[in-house]
Amino acid sequence: MILYDISSVIAPDMPVYKNRDEKRPRFVTSKNFSSSPVYEGRLDFDLHSGTHIDLPLHLFPEGDNSDSWNCTHSFTRSYLLDFSRIKGDRITAGELEDKTRDLKMDWHQSFDRTGFTILLKTVNSKLDKFNFSFVFLDHSGANFLARQNVTGVGIDALGIERDQPGHPTHKALLKSGIWILEGLRLDGVPEGEYILALLPLKISGVEALPARAVLLSPDSMPPIYR
Amino acid sequence: MILYDISSVIAPDMPVYKNRDEKRPRFVTSKNFSSSPVYEGRLDFDLHSGTHIDLPLHLFPEGDNSDSWNCTHSFTRSYLLDFSRIKGDRITAGELEDKTRDLKMDWHQSFDRTGFTILLKTVNSKLDKFNFSFVFLDHSGANFLARQNVTGVGIDALGIERDQPGHPTHKALLKSGIWILEGLRLDGVPEGEYILALLPLKISGVEALPARAVLLSPDSMPPIYR
Repeated sequence: MILYDISSVIAPDMPVYKNRDEKRPRFVTSKNFSSSPVYEGRLDFDLHSGTHIDLPLHLFPEGDNSDSWNCTHSFTRSYLLDFSRIKGDRITAGELEDKTRDLKMDWHQSFDRTGFTILLKTVNSKLDKFNFSFVFLDHSGANFLARQNVTGVGIDALGIERDQPGHPTHKALLKSGIWILEGLRLDGVPEGEYILALLPLKISGVEALPARAVLLSPDSMPPIYR
Repeated sequence: MILYDISSVIAPDMPVYKNRDEKRPRFVTSKNFSSSPVYEGRLDFDLHSGTHIDLPLHLFPEGDNSDSWNCTHSFTRSYLLDFSRIKGDRITAGELEDKTRDLKMDWHQSFDRTGFTILLKTVNSKLDKFNFSFVFLDHSGANFLARQNVTGVGIDALGIERDQPGHPTHKALLKSGIWILEGLRLDGVPEGEYILALLPLKISGVEALPARAVLLSPDSMPPIYR
């Protein structure tokens, strides 16, 4: 069985957005063996650390929070599209059109109630530190995806967009009911079709959910998900 | 497709072990819409909050930490055994023997490299607050399970044992390479066979991993996992 763990490691020295100190995780050991029979710790971390899902509340004051997520979204057909070789620093509508024409993807095929997800692989997955020029999804690309039969979009960057005034990429996706998955690690994962198993922590009332994400071979789920 | 989310909710008022204040989660809003175009927060929580996996480092100074976990453990055949009607406050070897005789379970069937997991359902799942008399796995029950072809044991309590000097239940399981899953919510889930999908956060170097756990119908995985 094919299984790719596409999640970022959460550790003291993990990359954080724009290397901001206030974004770093803090690990505290509460009990250790010098004074206790058990070892226990706490983690204080930004909800947008590592691999995580952005919910509408991240951008919209009246947007849904994490209580709107449920695990029927957790197992979806998924296409990984490889944009490692694009020339610019952003994935545009034109590049998505070219790619899906090359792959003969049918955007309108029915995937029942779970829909399907798009994962964007770029050169970001080659780098282990934060890159201020990371490749992102241009607003035109987001508008293109929002018109397709897509329920989620993921990318191998800590942001799905960078320095676009007003966050049009986030807004185009979230307004269309498409969830956003950031902080993926896709190096070594070939372009193609998978099952995305995406299980976030069950945190109530927040705007982002840290998650573990793995890709399984496309025959891994029962027929209703194919 | 059958899907049961068997994870605890992480929220400010969630139950914590023995209601200890130092175990409670702390939510902090880092940015909100009064001064920022985005809403963002942090979570400071005990790694043994809600649904989580105990690794050997929790009990043994030289024990493996979370870096020993990998996602090949994440999809396993699983039996949910219902002990909601036992008379005492602990699940003993005798009760496990009776139950598995009733169910005609074959402990020695081969489940390939992933093994299988046992989930213990008790009256704990009926209660939404911490119960100082919660039902737990007696050390005799742990020794019984450690002799079977089991790779993981889960329970619907924040501890797999309670007030047993020296933590013999934890130690019997962890010494046998069996991981422990605590903080499950099993109310409404019938006794029987499932696929356990268990995806913890990818936190490096720690003694426990917060996780999301769901049960799927047993025909949900490819033949290698059956």
